[in-house]
Amino acid sequence: MHFETRKRSILKALSWRTWATITTAIIVFVFTGKFALAITVGLIEVFAKMGLYFFHERVWQKIRWGKKEVPAFVLWFTGLPASGKKAVADAVYRQLKKDGLRVERLDSLDVRPLFPEVGFAPADVDRHVRRSGHLCSMLEKNGVAVVASFVSPYRPSREFVRGVTQNFVEVHMQTTPESCEKRDTKGHYQKARAGEYKYFPGVDVAYEKPRNPEVVIEADNLTTEQAADQIVGYLRQNILNGRRAPSSSRLEAPSQMQSIN
Amino acid sequence: MHFETRKRSILKALSWRTWATITTAIIVFVFTGKFALAITVGLIEVFAKMGLYFFHERVWQKIRWGKKEVPAFVLWFTGLPASGKKAVADAVYRQLKKDGLRVERLDSLDVRPLFPEVGFAPADVDRHVRRSGHLCSMLEKNGVAVVASFVSPYRPSREFVRGVTQNFVEVHMQTTPESCEKRDTKGHYQKARAGEYKYFPGVDVAYEKPRNPEVVIEADNLTTEQAADQIVGYLRQNILNGRRAPSSSRLEAPSQMQSIN
Repeated sequence: MHFETRKRSILKALSWRTWATITTAIIVFVFTGKFALAITVGLIEVFAKMGLYFFHERVWQKIRWGKKEVPAFVLWFTGLPASGKKAVADAVYRQLKKDGLRVERLDSLDVRPLFPEVGFAPADVDRHVRRSGHLCSMLEKNGVAVVASFVSPYRPSREFVRGVTQNFVEVHMQTTPESCEKRDTKGHYQKARAGEYKYFPGVDVAYEKPRNPEVVIEADNLTTEQAADQIVGYLRQNILNGRRAPSSSRLEAPSQMQSIN
Repeated sequence: MHFETRKRSILKALSWRTWATITTAIIVFVFTGKFALAITVGLIEVFAKMGLYFFHERVWQKIRWGKKEVPAFVLWFTGLPASGKKAVADAVYRQLKKDGLRVERLDSLDVRPLFPEVGFAPADVDRHVRRSGHLCSMLEKNGVAVVASFVSPYRPSREFVRGVTQNFVEVHMQTTPESCEKRDTKGHYQKARAGEYKYFPGVDVAYEKPRNPEVVIEADNLTTEQAADQIVGYLRQNILNGRRAPSSSRLEAPSQMQSIN
């Protein structure tokens, strides 16, 4: 929540008075032909109205009517490791931030180090994605848009996130494991093929493609900036103008629980 | 983030014009003694200035200067089961919400049902508290205040939450297990004493009191409303006026991680 300072109201009053008094003086002069009168009325007006403007601003400060929130959303990047999620998500985040949006950036690796007990086995990944989705939904609920990038290879966990959010925008980074491997500067694919990593999506476990993603990025044929523009275009047309109705598919948490912690 | 609608600017222009034109007409009349002239100048001014006011508002809409955020914070209730955390936290939340604050309410039981794999053993509780604290910190970072109530019986997990937040306000619900047991309508204490629950703080595991809580509530001697007033008073004096400097003790996440999910 924000409020407007007194200084802002004072500066607005000064700004307004400059333009308004010039207008008044011109009206009086045009109407009476008397230059001195025009100036005198203008001068008196300056003092009388400046105070009036200030109090007018202070009263309107308390009126909420006509102040609209930009709808929040969860922009969820999914795709194979090294499919370019992070780079495109970063570019989209920068654009949204530049537009003055209240937006948070969440990458899988921002969360994992805080909870080192979570590994990469399917059940662990599922929990990691669901928890991160819950975090996204809490931010979204409070008017904060989220740009999230997670391999999130398993469909059910992504559908969980869709279920707990209002405006879920799934972005599928469409690539082949081969092109990802070329992009992979850290040698993760090689290690996975050599058996050093287990449960590596695209190598020894399947990556489950989204069935109806809101946006598909042909990652092998687009630059990072082109991909980001495509996504921001989608958001402007479908979310940021406030046209899209919130989905009615929010999950309700079960209400029965042992209440000791 | 919010923006101001055109309708708001139009209504502000109408509101301003009513008061301002009355002022102008009075000035012209007092100065010239000519009633007709005062009315004519007033009428012309109505049209000329209404448009000017509207455009003036639209320009200022884009100027951020003088718009201040209320500092966010994490108000963390800790105390024995049935010590009254939830009731007082709810009352504080209602007051803050009424003041127009952007605030989220988070109770332990709002989170637990979503992740049923988390039990009540100390390691589980520790993870539950840390994760919830991380969620609080993300909300706080984005300008959303949080009112959180968790038994959170173990000191290290609470200190983790303090470390990841900026304005951490720890509220200790000071009671004895005996008075909690009287308040406990659900029979949890009885079941714990009968051995049906394990790891029940105050019965078979210790509740670790906060060493330097920001607020101590003498829960056995205060009504819910008195306790809430004491806490809101603390927030007004120490946080909401923007005087308290953000603590410098934020945890930095380790930066090395296997980057596959």
